[in-house]
Amino acid sequence: MAKYSDELSEIFTALADPTRRAVVDRLGRGPATISELAEPLSISLPSFLKHVRTLEDCGLIRTRKSGRVRTCVLDERRLGVIDGWLETQRRSWEAATDRLDAFVTADPPPTSTTPPR
Amino acid sequence: MAKYSDELSEIFTALADPTRRAVVDRLGRGPATISELAEPLSISLPSFLKHVRTLEDCGLIRTRKSGRVRTCVLDERRLGVIDGWLETQRRSWEAATDRLDAFVTADPPPTSTTPPR
Repeated sequence: MAKYSDELSEIFTALADPTRRAVVDRLGRGPATISELAEPLSISLPSFLKHVRTLEDCGLIRTRKSGRVRTCVLDERRLGVIDGWLETQRRSWEAATDRLDAFVTADPPPTSTTPPR
Repeated sequence: MAKYSDELSEIFTALADPTRRAVVDRLGRGPATISELAEPLSISLPSFLKHVRTLEDCGLIRTRKSGRVRTCVLDERRLGVIDGWLETQRRSWEAATDRLDAFVTADPPPTSTTPPR
Protein backbone atom coordinates (compact mmCIF):
# COMPACT_ATOMS: atom_id res chain seq x y z
CA MET A 1 0.00 0.00 0.00
CA ALA A 2 2.95 2.29 0.77
CA LYS A 3 4.30 1.56 -2.72
CA TYR A 4 0.94 2.48 -4.32
CA SER A 5 0.82 5.69 -2.27
CA ASP A 6 4.40 6.55 -3.28
CA GLU A 7 3.52 5.91 -6.93
CA LEU A 8 0.53 8.24 -6.68
CA SER A 9 2.66 10.95 -5.04
CA GLU A 10 5.35 10.68 -7.72
CA ILE A 11 2.90 10.77 -10.62
CA PHE A 12 0.81 13.63 -9.19
CA THR A 13 4.05 15.56 -8.55
CA ALA A 14 5.20 14.93 -12.12
CA LEU A 15 1.89 16.18 -13.52
CA ALA A 16 1.86 19.29 -11.30
CA ASP A 17 4.24 21.03 -13.73
CA PRO A 18 2.91 22.55 -16.99
CA THR A 19 6.08 21.69 -18.96
CA ARG A 20 5.83 18.05 -17.96
CA ARG A 21 2.11 18.00 -18.79
CA ALA A 22 2.95 19.45 -22.22
CA VAL A 23 5.36 16.55 -22.78
CA VAL A 24 2.75 13.99 -21.73
CA ASP A 25 0.22 15.70 -23.98
CA ARG A 26 2.59 15.68 -26.97
CA LEU A 27 3.65 12.04 -26.43
CA GLY A 28 0.01 11.01 -26.32
CA ARG A 29 0.06 11.59 -30.08
CA GLY A 30 3.12 9.37 -30.57
CA PRO A 31 6.86 9.10 -29.78
CA ALA A 32 9.07 12.17 -30.19
CA THR A 33 12.73 13.04 -29.84
CA ILE A 34 14.08 15.30 -27.08
CA SER A 35 14.66 18.12 -29.57
CA GLU A 36 11.13 17.77 -31.01
CA LEU A 37 9.69 17.95 -27.48
CA ALA A 38 11.86 20.88 -26.36
CA GLU A 39 11.48 22.96 -29.54
CA PRO A 40 8.04 24.52 -28.82
CA LEU A 41 8.91 25.19 -25.16
CA SER A 42 10.65 28.34 -23.94
CA ILE A 43 13.09 26.53 -21.67
CA SER A 44 16.79 25.70 -21.64
CA LEU A 45 17.82 22.20 -22.65
CA PRO A 46 19.36 21.36 -19.24
CA SER A 47 16.13 22.41 -17.50
CA PHE A 48 14.08 20.46 -20.00
CA LEU A 49 16.19 17.33 -19.47
CA LYS A 50 15.44 17.52 -15.74
CA HIS A 51 11.73 17.43 -16.53
CA VAL A 52 12.30 14.44 -18.83
CA ARG A 53 14.18 12.70 -16.03
CA THR A 54 11.31 13.33 -13.57
CA LEU A 55 8.82 11.86 -16.04
CA GLU A 56 11.10 8.89 -16.69
CA ASP A 57 11.75 8.26 -12.97
CA CYS A 58 8.03 7.91 -12.21
CA GLY A 59 7.51 5.73 -15.28
CA LEU A 60 5.22 8.10 -17.20
CA ILE A 61 7.61 8.05 -20.16
CA ARG A 62 10.35 5.79 -21.43
CA THR A 63 13.29 6.91 -23.48
CA ARG A 64 15.66 5.13 -25.86
CA LYS A 65 18.87 6.45 -27.34
CA SER A 66 19.91 5.63 -30.89
CA GLY A 67 23.16 7.30 -31.87
CA ARG A 68 22.84 10.86 -30.58
CA VAL A 69 19.05 10.96 -30.73
CA ARG A 70 16.97 10.14 -27.63
CA THR A 71 13.36 9.22 -28.39
CA CYS A 72 10.62 9.42 -25.75
CA VAL A 73 7.39 7.46 -25.56
CA LEU A 74 4.44 7.73 -23.18
CA ASP A 75 3.59 4.77 -20.96
CA GLU A 76 -0.10 5.44 -20.63
CA ARG A 77 -0.47 2.65 -18.07
CA ARG A 78 1.11 5.00 -15.51
CA LEU A 79 -1.62 7.57 -16.09
CA GLY A 80 -3.94 4.65 -15.38
CA VAL A 81 -2.63 4.60 -11.79
CA ILE A 82 -4.14 8.01 -11.03
CA ASP A 83 -7.13 7.21 -13.21
CA GLY A 84 -7.77 4.27 -10.91
CA TRP A 85 -7.44 6.46 -7.82
CA LEU A 86 -9.92 8.96 -9.27
CA GLU A 87 -12.32 6.14 -10.12
CA THR A 88 -12.19 4.98 -6.49
CA GLN A 89 -12.98 8.52 -5.34
CA ARG A 90 -15.80 8.81 -7.88
CA ARG A 91 -17.49 5.63 -6.66
CA SER A 92 -17.33 7.05 -3.15
CA TRP A 93 -18.71 10.51 -3.87
CA GLU A 94 -21.39 9.36 -6.31
CA ALA A 95 -23.00 7.66 -3.34
CA ALA A 96 -23.66 11.11 -1.92
CA THR A 97 -24.07 13.51 -4.85
CA ASP A 98 -26.27 15.94 -3.01
CA ARG A 99 -23.90 16.31 -0.10
CA LEU A 100 -22.28 19.59 -1.15
CA ASP A 101 -25.54 21.28 -2.06
CA ALA A 102 -26.99 20.33 1.30
CA PHE A 103 -23.90 21.68 3.04
CA VAL A 104 -23.90 24.97 1.17
CA THR A 105 -27.59 25.66 1.56
CA ALA A 106 -28.01 24.38 5.11
CA ASP A 107 -29.02 26.88 7.78
CA PRO A 108 -26.40 27.17 10.51
CA PRO A 109 -27.61 25.65 13.77
CA PRO A 110 -29.03 28.17 16.27
CA THR A 111 -26.05 29.13 18.40
CA SER A 112 -28.13 29.62 21.55
CA THR A 113 -29.02 25.92 21.74
CA THR A 114 -25.90 24.38 20.19
CA PRO A 115 -22.85 24.87 22.38
CA PRO A 116 -19.49 24.78 20.57
CA ARG A 117 -17.41 21.64 21.11
CA MET B 1 -6.03 28.54 -20.94
CA ALA B 2 -3.41 29.81 -18.48
CA LYS B 3 -6.04 29.71 -15.75
CA TYR B 4 -6.93 26.09 -16.63
CA SER B 5 -3.23 25.17 -16.56
CA ASP B 6 -2.78 26.88 -13.18
CA GLU B 7 -5.81 25.01 -11.84
CA LEU B 8 -4.38 21.70 -13.00
CA SER B 9 -1.01 22.51 -11.39
CA GLU B 10 -2.62 23.46 -8.09
CA ILE B 11 -4.84 20.39 -7.94
CA PHE B 12 -2.08 17.96 -8.97
CA THR B 13 0.20 19.56 -6.36
CA ALA B 14 -2.48 19.20 -3.71
CA LEU B 15 -2.97 15.52 -4.54
CA ALA B 16 0.77 14.79 -4.57
CA ASP B 17 0.75 14.54 -0.77
CA PRO B 18 -0.52 11.37 0.97
CA THR B 19 -2.01 13.29 3.92
CA ARG B 20 -4.03 15.49 1.57
CA ARG B 21 -5.15 12.44 -0.43
CA ALA B 22 -6.25 10.82 2.84
CA VAL B 23 -8.41 13.87 3.55
CA VAL B 24 -9.95 13.79 0.07
CA ASP B 25 -10.55 10.07 0.46
CA ARG B 26 -12.24 10.53 3.84
CA LEU B 27 -14.38 13.47 2.69
CA GLY B 28 -15.55 11.41 -0.28
CA ARG B 29 -17.65 9.54 2.29
CA GLY B 30 -19.17 12.73 3.70
CA PRO B 31 -18.33 15.94 5.60
CA ALA B 32 -16.06 15.73 8.64
CA THR B 33 -14.68 18.09 11.27
CA ILE B 34 -11.00 19.05 11.45
CA SER B 35 -10.53 16.90 14.55
CA GLU B 36 -12.24 13.89 12.93
CA LEU B 37 -9.95 14.26 9.91
CA ALA B 38 -6.75 14.76 11.93
CA GLU B 39 -7.43 12.01 14.50
CA PRO B 40 -6.29 8.98 12.43
CA LEU B 41 -3.23 10.82 11.07
CA SER B 42 0.13 10.95 12.86
CA ILE B 43 0.68 14.65 12.33
CA SER B 44 0.63 17.81 14.45
CA LEU B 45 -2.46 19.99 14.26
CA PRO B 46 -0.56 23.02 12.86
CA SER B 47 0.89 20.86 10.07
CA PHE B 48 -2.50 19.33 9.39
CA LEU B 49 -4.12 22.76 9.15
CA LYS B 50 -1.58 23.73 6.46
CA HIS B 51 -2.71 20.72 4.42
CA VAL B 52 -6.34 21.74 4.91
CA ARG B 53 -5.47 25.24 3.73
CA THR B 54 -3.77 23.87 0.59
CA LEU B 55 -6.84 21.78 -0.21
CA GLU B 56 -9.12 24.75 0.44
CA ASP B 57 -7.01 27.16 -1.66
CA CYS B 58 -7.27 24.97 -4.75
CA GLY B 59 -10.98 24.42 -4.18
CA LEU B 60 -10.86 20.68 -3.54
CA ILE B 61 -12.54 21.17 -0.17
CA ARG B 62 -14.67 23.82 1.47
CA THR B 63 -14.80 24.49 5.17
CA ARG B 64 -17.37 26.12 7.43
CA LYS B 65 -16.96 27.12 11.04
CA SER B 66 -19.78 26.79 13.53
CA GLY B 67 -18.78 27.86 17.01
CA ARG B 68 -15.35 26.28 17.55
CA VAL B 69 -15.93 23.39 15.15
CA ARG B 70 -14.73 23.65 11.53
CA THR B 71 -16.41 21.20 9.16
CA CYS B 72 -14.87 20.23 5.82
CA VAL B 73 -16.62 19.01 2.70
CA LEU B 74 -15.23 17.72 -0.60
CA ASP B 75 -16.03 19.65 -3.78
CA GLU B 76 -15.83 16.73 -6.18
CA ARG B 77 -16.19 19.04 -9.18
CA ARG B 78 -12.55 20.06 -8.65
CA LEU B 79 -11.45 16.46 -9.03
CA GLY B 80 -13.42 16.62 -12.28
CA VAL B 81 -10.88 19.15 -13.58
CA ILE B 82 -8.09 16.57 -13.60
CA ASP B 83 -10.55 13.86 -14.61
CA GLY B 84 -11.23 15.96 -17.71
CA TRP B 85 -7.52 16.35 -18.42
CA LEU B 86 -7.02 12.60 -18.13
CA GLU B 87 -9.98 11.97 -20.44
CA THR B 88 -8.37 14.24 -23.05
CA GLN B 89 -5.14 12.27 -22.76
CA ARG B 90 -7.02 8.99 -22.98
CA ARG B 91 -8.75 9.94 -26.21
CA SER B 92 -5.34 10.81 -27.63
CA TRP B 93 -3.50 7.66 -26.63
CA GLU B 94 -6.34 5.26 -27.43
CA ALA B 95 -5.82 6.26 -31.06
CA ALA B 96 -2.45 4.57 -30.86
CA THR B 97 -2.75 1.71 -28.35
CA ASP B 98 -0.03 -0.39 -29.90
CA ARG B 99 2.52 2.43 -29.87
CA LEU B 100 4.42 1.41 -26.77
CA ASP B 101 4.61 -2.27 -27.70
CA ALA B 102 5.94 -1.36 -31.12
CA PHE B 103 8.51 0.96 -29.53
CA VAL B 104 9.70 -1.58 -26.99
CA THR B 105 9.97 -4.49 -29.41
CA ALA B 106 11.32 -2.56 -32.41
CA ASP B 107 14.81 -3.42 -33.63
CA PRO B 108 17.16 -0.44 -33.40
CA PRO B 109 18.06 0.92 -36.83
CA PRO B 110 21.41 -0.38 -38.21
CA THR B 111 23.95 2.19 -37.05
CA SER B 112 26.14 1.78 -40.13
CA THR B 113 23.45 3.22 -42.43
CA THR B 114 21.72 5.61 -40.03
CA PRO B 115 23.93 8.55 -39.10
CA PRO B 116 23.10 10.23 -35.81
CA ARG B 117 21.37 13.58 -36.08
